[in-house]
Amino acid sequence: MRIGILTSGGDCPGLNAVIRSVVHRGVTEHGDDILGFEDGFKGLLERRYRPLDLNSVSGILQRGGTILGAARVERARLREAADRTGELMTELALDALIPIGGEGTLTAARMLSDAGMPVVGVPKTIDNDISATDVTFGFDTAVGVATEAIDRLKTTAESHQRVMVVEVMGRHAGWIALQSGMAGGGHAILIPERPFRVDDICEMINARFARGKKFAVVVVAEGAHPAPGDMPYETGVIDKYGHERFVGIGNHLATELERRLGKEAKPVILGHVQRGGTPTPYDRALATRFGWHAVEAVHKGAYGMMTALHGTEIVLVPLAEAVSRMKTVPPERCLEAESVF
Amino acid sequence: MRIGILTSGGDCPGLNAVIRSVVHRGVTEHGDDILGFEDGFKGLLERRYRPLDLNSVSGILQRGGTILGAARVERARLREAADRTGELMTELALDALIPIGGEGTLTAARMLSDAGMPVVGVPKTIDNDISATDVTFGFDTAVGVATEAIDRLKTTAESHQRVMVVEVMGRHAGWIALQSGMAGGGHAILIPERPFRVDDICEMINARFARGKKFAVVVVAEGAHPAPGDMPYETGVIDKYGHERFVGIGNHLATELERRLGKEAKPVILGHVQRGGTPTPYDRALATRFGWHAVEAVHKGAYGMMTALHGTEIVLVPLAEAVSRMKTVPPERCLEAESVF
Amino acid sequence: MRIGILTSGGDCPGLNAVIRSVVHRGVTEHGDDILGFEDGFKGLLERRYRPLDLNSVSGILQRGGTILGAARVERARLREAADRTGELMTELALDALIPIGGEGTLTAARMLSDAGMPVVGVPKTIDNDISATDVTFGFDTAVGVATEAIDRLKTTAESHQRVMVVEVMGRHAGWIALQSGMAGGGHAILIPERPFRVDDICEMINARFARGKKFAVVVVAEGAHPAPGDMPYETGVIDKYGHERFVGIGNHLATELERRLGKEAKPVILGHVQRGGTPTPYDRALATRFGWHAVEAVHKGAYGMMTALHGTEIVLVPLAEAVSRMKTVPPERCLEAESVF
Amino acid sequence: MRIGILTSGGDCPGLNAVIRSVVHRGVTEHGDDILGFEDGFKGLLERRYRPLDLNSVSGILQRGGTILGAARVERARLREAADRTGELMTELALDALIPIGGEGTLTAARMLSDAGMPVVGVPKTIDNDISATDVTFGFDTAVGVATEAIDRLKTTAESHQRVMVVEVMGRHAGWIALQSGMAGGGHAILIPERPFRVDDICEMINARFARGKKFAVVVVAEGAHPAPGDMPYETGVIDKYGHERFVGIGNHLATELERRLGKEAKPVILGHVQRGGTPTPYDRALATRFGWHAVEAVHKGAYGMMTALHGTEIVLVPLAEAVSRMKTVPPERCLEAESVF
Repeated sequence: MRIGILTSGGDCPGLNAVIRSVVHRGVTEHGDDILGFEDGFKGLLERRYRPLDLNSVSGILQRGGTILGAARVERARLREAADRTGELMTELALDALIPIGGEGTLTAARMLSDAGMPVVGVPKTIDNDISATDVTFGFDTAVGVATEAIDRLKTTAESHQRVMVVEVMGRHAGWIALQSGMAGGGHAILIPERPFRVDDICEMINARFARGKKFAVVVVAEGAHPAPGDMPYETGVIDKYGHERFVGIGNHLATELERRLGKEAKPVILGHVQRGGTPTPYDRALATRFGWHAVEAVHKGAYGMMTALHGTEIVLVPLAEAVSRMKTVPPERCLEAESVF
Repeated sequence: MRIGILTSGGDCPGLNAVIRSVVHRGVTEHGDDILGFEDGFKGLLERRYRPLDLNSVSGILQRGGTILGAARVERARLREAADRTGELMTELALDALIPIGGEGTLTAARMLSDAGMPVVGVPKTIDNDISATDVTFGFDTAVGVATEAIDRLKTTAESHQRVMVVEVMGRHAGWIALQSGMAGGGHAILIPERPFRVDDICEMINARFARGKKFAVVVVAEGAHPAPGDMPYETGVIDKYGHERFVGIGNHLATELERRLGKEAKPVILGHVQRGGTPTPYDRALATRFGWHAVEAVHKGAYGMMTALHGTEIVLVPLAEAVSRMKTVPPERCLEAESVF
Repeated sequence: MRIGILTSGGDCPGLNAVIRSVVHRGVTEHGDDILGFEDGFKGLLERRYRPLDLNSVSGILQRGGTILGAARVERARLREAADRTGELMTELALDALIPIGGEGTLTAARMLSDAGMPVVGVPKTIDNDISATDVTFGFDTAVGVATEAIDRLKTTAESHQRVMVVEVMGRHAGWIALQSGMAGGGHAILIPERPFRVDDICEMINARFARGKKFAVVVVAEGAHPAPGDMPYETGVIDKYGHERFVGIGNHLATELERRLGKEAKPVILGHVQRGGTPTPYDRALATRFGWHAVEAVHKGAYGMMTALHGTEIVLVPLAEAVSRMKTVPPERCLEAESVF
Repeated sequence: MRIGILTSGGDCPGLNAVIRSVVHRGVTEHGDDILGFEDGFKGLLERRYRPLDLNSVSGILQRGGTILGAARVERARLREAADRTGELMTELALDALIPIGGEGTLTAARMLSDAGMPVVGVPKTIDNDISATDVTFGFDTAVGVATEAIDRLKTTAESHQRVMVVEVMGRHAGWIALQSGMAGGGHAILIPERPFRVDDICEMINARFARGKKFAVVVVAEGAHPAPGDMPYETGVIDKYGHERFVGIGNHLATELERRLGKEAKPVILGHVQRGGTPTPYDRALATRFGWHAVEAVHKGAYGMMTALHGTEIVLVPLAEAVSRMKTVPPERCLEAESVF
């Protein structure tokens, strides 16, 4: 068969492992031709692709990013493509397409699938917020980077009797903050699912200092926010040249904690380091399994589906289900983290 | 309540995270007294313990090993203890016991539980071979160490056109070999579940060399073994002083591959580095959750149970179930690894 | 002998290794009593100290931060202390003092030494800007954190055809930027020693894109700054509540690059993660050697001196020399980095 | 100019960084043509090479091994090549050759240089035993791997009251054992330069156990050996099939310690993992500087020289000097490590 593959959306450690796995399984087991479209759906629309053989995926298992590139494309152009799906597949002589991406990509995949394209999706998000799968690759790597930062900040906080505020990724779901906060032993974990009150955090910190632990680390997801009326929080800040600058929750919270506590509070914004670099073994293995099962799904004709991890098994779930709702942190998981919210 | 805790069996990254979590949850939420028995069941039998408060578990989340120590104890002495369970609990004024350990420990826990002791177990094995839970903590760390070694060996193998044989842990189950082999991109993965043929491995390696990839990495679980009659394999080797020395499968296989292939093949035996050191974030979070739920189980009176991961949730399963059979690698997982077996 | 030890200034990976080494060598070889003053000179002035024996330094070799704490103290109080040096030493029955710290600490050490206190200093700065020693411990760890970040950012930049601006430590000297930039393969390295022109950076980036390398990573020391008139650069930014916020060079430069290039440019500010956490083996070994030699210097009566690395040897240099001038990056080292400046 | 480059001898993290640096500097600054000979001198003799441009060294800075390959070649063939040096250079139209390698390679380089070939050498050895340079790249990475292993083994040793024997690289010089032993806090460090007595090690271990530290880690270089008559030590062991197997000092010593101490002692042989994988930032920066200076040396006509690190500077030293004597660990450095020898 002639199978197209593309990566779309924000990059995520493990993308290359999926690509490699699709090529390995497709070529070695089934004798497939694999085409790699460049820059996501953009490459599909613009017919930019290259054939991928075993040599072209050699040595990429450990590499972050995506050898195919990823770019955003407007919904309208995708719409248009969906309308001409049959034409596109004929022109490219494609038998199936495996798009790897997050919520947006999977929604597009579903649109194409509904329009008749033979599609098998592979979910990808470092935020781990896709409900149809227990875990997505990239998440473990992001948690690893965040936890290492928390580990490092604890020692420096302790030496200087400081409060450190670490802002990690997670715009709509707090999984990275929750998992890295638990793993690193953060003293408060703030997530979008549960608006926080600054006074609760202050109380916890004061209690720590009172029992002789003269430092604290607060882990805050970028999408976390104060309860209504609790703390002024505007992300737009105007500099003296009149330019607006984005100032996120980590910086705001550190300032506010310093003000209310009368103790030094320093923000650290981890940012893009969380989505780059060598994937963890967990992510490489999961991504490899997703790729393997996507190829098998194609050969079984299981279109309109997406690979997913359920327990220890890889299963196929309908794309429709995958994008129906976001997986957020449930209240009982917050409890486990023993944190102030 | 007055809760005893002990760690038993081979050590495993994450043990301290469980201990810390039990203390945090017990002390902070329930006002429990936590007693840490030293050197596993031995300390229980010998009444050697120390009270554990928040300060005594400060800074241990990241530390490998176990602050309580772990030693082996003869089954007979445990039997005896089980017979005097009531006495023991009264004497120590214990309300419940949380033993953390592997198959042997959980079997002992079950024996004590059957004898009337209020026990909640926490499973532990780097080998990941306990059937009642999806994953055990320590496994991810061991896989991490093994994968890092494979990553390193690939570059040196490639530069010198060599075959490297990496022996990893896994006496009865091949999970570490499977996961690290997939994550590191090993070219053959040999596990106890499936006896191997040396000629199959040679064939794969020759095929690699033929297509220009002039190196190979073979990942072998310590418990893997050749199919009957395939390759001489005796672990006892007599040195010139008449002492018998243990020589494992990794060394034997490298020798045999070198002989049959006529190419340099070097063994690397990872050994104990796989079970020491800082746990990965995954293991720390899982261990923390296990500890939290063990305390909750005690307070709910859910005795004779063990914490387990099912999907993304921590559940309680009967100790009886936990130790009934070993979780080995099923054939379909071998397929996913695209390997010679 | 009765030897005091204290750590002062910003924390730095390796401080605990020095403390451990002083205790090991002093206690084991010379039978010394070692007193650890808490929170730097503050503890000395306030007579807050604890005896340090072998057990009290067990397990700290790998730990970041300082078990003794570090706080700032006003110059005036030090002045006062210097005036009553004899009194202080008599009262504490101290034979010698080993202060570990950066430029400020060593200046204070020199003041106390000039006032007659038997002092042997140990230099410490992650910035590596003390001229009397080839290297200081902590620097290699900071470079390691920065390089890992650059490695990670390269893969994400490449996937998205982005420019990444990484701000690393180095207020007055660009050593961390230089070394991590070389090690990580940064495409421009901006340091305080050489004001930069934004157009030079744009030219380099455009040249890269022109030859098909559609991403770039710019490493900028926090103390780097544009040539006069080159780019507006004000660190104070006023938010809508009228509070002034600090916005550093990394953020400004990313904005300006984005504006001039018309390409996405993202800043990452590494901040305090660079100074925390487990020291690298290099830093642990160097710190251990410094501690060993400081004790030997005390026993030889080599007061008013500081330990230093010259080539592969640890030597003693006068404190006076140590603080006379800052070690900045010389022009020929910039050349080696093949970078735009 | 037309410059040849080759890597020879055992592989070493940082080789690719040198290659990349030579290409970057040569191509960008001088407009050189760089030829990469494959498999060391073998490729030179067999005229196997490929042109190296900026793209061919893209992404290799972080990669272990050598993209050019490395193989051994007999001295006689080299001798022959030296005799026809003029011919060879003319035929290949080469202006200069940059061989990167260890003692053997540099000796060959000197032979070629003496025969009139324009050669600039770059020293390479993970053992760090080349006397003309303070440090060689690869050493820091090897120390990093060894130290991480020691860190991990300490926690497992502690939990089980065991002695661990870690065998690290270093056939003739004990630098890796010394540096990793200091960095990891090994309790004994055994090196080739100083034959050890098993009873001294037992005494140290017994003393540790007596003061409550119930574990020990012994770091032993592969080339360390007992004092005459101290302990039986034969590396050849005959198995039941009559094959001789190599059993190194680590295994022998663990057996002997277990016998004399009556305590469990486990060997771990690190082996080839020490020479593979991503180089540390230190090694990448040093290798990059070596490459840069080698190109400059060629353009200055400084033939018959080798790059070397003296203090913080890269200098050129005669090849003759480089290979005149091995750099071994001097007695005073042993003292610093506070170890039993």
